Amino acid sequence: MLASSVHAPLTAISRGGIVESLHYGSVAVVDRDGAILFAAGDPLAMTFTRSSLKPLQALPFVAAGGIERFKFSPAETALLCASHSGEPRHVDAAASMLAKAGNSAARLQCGTHPPMHYEVRGEIPPPPPYSPLAHNCSGKHSGMLAHCTACGYDHADYLDPGHPLQREIRSAVAHMAGVAESALVAGTDGCSAPNYAMPLAHLALAFARLAAPEDDARYGAAPKRLAQAMTTHPEMVSGEGRSDLALMRAGRGDWVCKIGAEGVQGIGVKSRGWGIAVKVADGTRRALAPAVVAVLDQAGLLDAQARATLAPLAAPTLRNYRGLTTGDVRPVVVLDKDDRRLTPVAASLPE
Amino acid sequence: MLASSVHAPLTAISRGGIVESLHYGSVAVVDRDGAILFAAGDPLAMTFTRSSLKPLQALPFVAAGGIERFKFSPAETALLCASHSGEPRHVDAAASMLAKAGNSAARLQCGTHPPMHYEVRGEIPPPPPYSPLAHNCSGKHSGMLAHCTACGYDHADYLDPGHPLQREIRSAVAHMAGVAESALVAGTDGCSAPNYAMPLAHLALAFARLAAPEDDARYGAAPKRLAQAMTTHPEMVSGEGRSDLALMRAGRGDWVCKIGAEGVQGIGVKSRGWGIAVKVADGTRRALAPAVVAVLDQAGLLDAQARATLAPLAAPTLRNYRGLTTGDVRPVVVLDKDDRRLTPVAASLPE
Repeated sequence: MLASSVHAPLTAISRGGIVESLHYGSVAVVDRDGAILFAAGDPLAMTFTRSSLKPLQALPFVAAGGIERFKFSPAETALLCASHSGEPRHVDAAASMLAKAGNSAARLQCGTHPPMHYEVRGEIPPPPPYSPLAHNCSGKHSGMLAHCTACGYDHADYLDPGHPLQREIRSAVAHMAGVAESALVAGTDGCSAPNYAMPLAHLALAFARLAAPEDDARYGAAPKRLAQAMTTHPEMVSGEGRSDLALMRAGRGDWVCKIGAEGVQGIGVKSRGWGIAVKVADGTRRALAPAVVAVLDQAGLLDAQARATLAPLAAPTLRNYRGLTTGDVRPVVVLDKDDRRLTPVAASLPE
Repeated sequence: MLASSVHAPLTAISRGGIVESLHYGSVAVVDRDGAILFAAGDPLAMTFTRSSLKPLQALPFVAAGGIERFKFSPAETALLCASHSGEPRHVDAAASMLAKAGNSAARLQCGTHPPMHYEVRGEIPPPPPYSPLAHNCSGKHSGMLAHCTACGYDHADYLDPGHPLQREIRSAVAHMAGVAESALVAGTDGCSAPNYAMPLAHLALAFARLAAPEDDARYGAAPKRLAQAMTTHPEMVSGEGRSDLALMRAGRGDWVCKIGAEGVQGIGVKSRGWGIAVKVADGTRRALAPAVVAVLDQAGLLDAQARATLAPLAAPTLRNYRGLTTGDVRPVVVLDKDDRRLTPVAASLPE
């Protein structure tokens, strides 16, 4: 089961002027036709998409007219794709989405965890119990339950891989990523939903297609609507003080950004028709944002304003328990030009 | 500043039956004469020792008769070397050590953090403020202050690298590790004390010497006394539910174990005269214990009883927010025989 991928250094943590810790990983930058433009490490490394999958998981619901049917606002549509911080606006939106579709928080099977906004601010959360509405995936699960309502599917087992909802999602993931359903590796996510692994560059391809200006052959305007909701309401996709919010604000509507657990980042670049996917091999969050900013810069996507805005994200200073500076975090990723083209994964690609 | 070390895969995290995340790192197993016996990755990777340095930091105090002078118990002596969990017995011992030397908690300059035993049990800690006595390094700092009292040094600036206490410690570190003082790379630790980086195998050498049966040429019985206190009172060096305690219990008095932040482990093996040092390149704690158990096993140090005792540490199961199994953690490190001999680092070695 050992990965054969050869990852490359992405981000270095310093102390006393030398590298104390080093994070490896891989990067793929592709266009909508599946050409790999830039890469680092192994752009074909098998990667569990984790929460970067959320915009794709929302496609069947949106394409079937769910937003119109339940009158979800653009902010609520963005929450479908969110790993949110459990801020009041997030909790309220999830409750609203459940109510609009005739569901309730009791139907959410995501589990519970302390609302993320406490950790972001360096605060100790109150003791449990926590509401599932504050789970970072509650928007995704509320959308899944709404789709069950719309289609007359059973709500009780909506996370079962054999449930029609999950079968529709798997088909959407395969379509957008250019990977045959049978070639997707299935696992269980932190929120108990089925999740999928695919070669990293195929995750990038899915984000390129999510950010495309044209309608999708199968899902019509749904990808575009989700991308638009995410870039219009990045505060609903992420949370104050977090990287996706900072990235999407710096992108001024052009970048559709979604992190995933274990060091995953997907970005769709509307203006270029590109998709970017980054995986920190060891899964550590502190390594991700600096590497992502460096990748954006080396891919030629940062102007002076964006570079300045993102500087604190790219190279944070490390302080100890007394606030003394002990070192810093710096990207060391080197993006190389690539001339490979994505080949079909056990099926024709691109579809 | 990019590290030139070539780290090797140490520990893999799985999901859905494939590797989701992979932790790289390096290992060195040496004997007391500086022969490298086994290695993985780069055994000479420059490594900040972090809290694995604690037994060495206590040497000047113990060698100067501090334990006798202040009547520190064996449990308190072990706490000198601790990254403890802030359990009541740890807090009480630190308070006792301060009182015996005429110091108080107000003199501790380690800072504060939530007592670690909450995190170990998966509990939310109470809100701040926290006592510096519950800081994982409070035993080390109490010993540093006691040495200042014994030697008539100023207590106000005891963490300054130029303070006579810190100069004595630096000299002890250099002596035990076989590295010239001028070749040690200095940085500031999380607890604001000076800390040092050295080639990984030299950290292993220091642990081999710490676990030696003979008196040290310069520090006499002090290394042996500290090693003895640590293996007799591992609960004072670590805490319930943590890896150093589990390792030392499994070692039944033979293994002197000390973790450090950013994925560092030092182990001295009394019966063999060996020292072991492991560094997880990315600094992630979850990767460390599985790799350490695999290293002990491959080095021939585990009998059936120890292997069974350590199995849960070697390969924990991963569960999500609802308690569902999502994957596991497995060591993938492969220890190779090595025939290198440690060369002096800008000075003669071994002394």
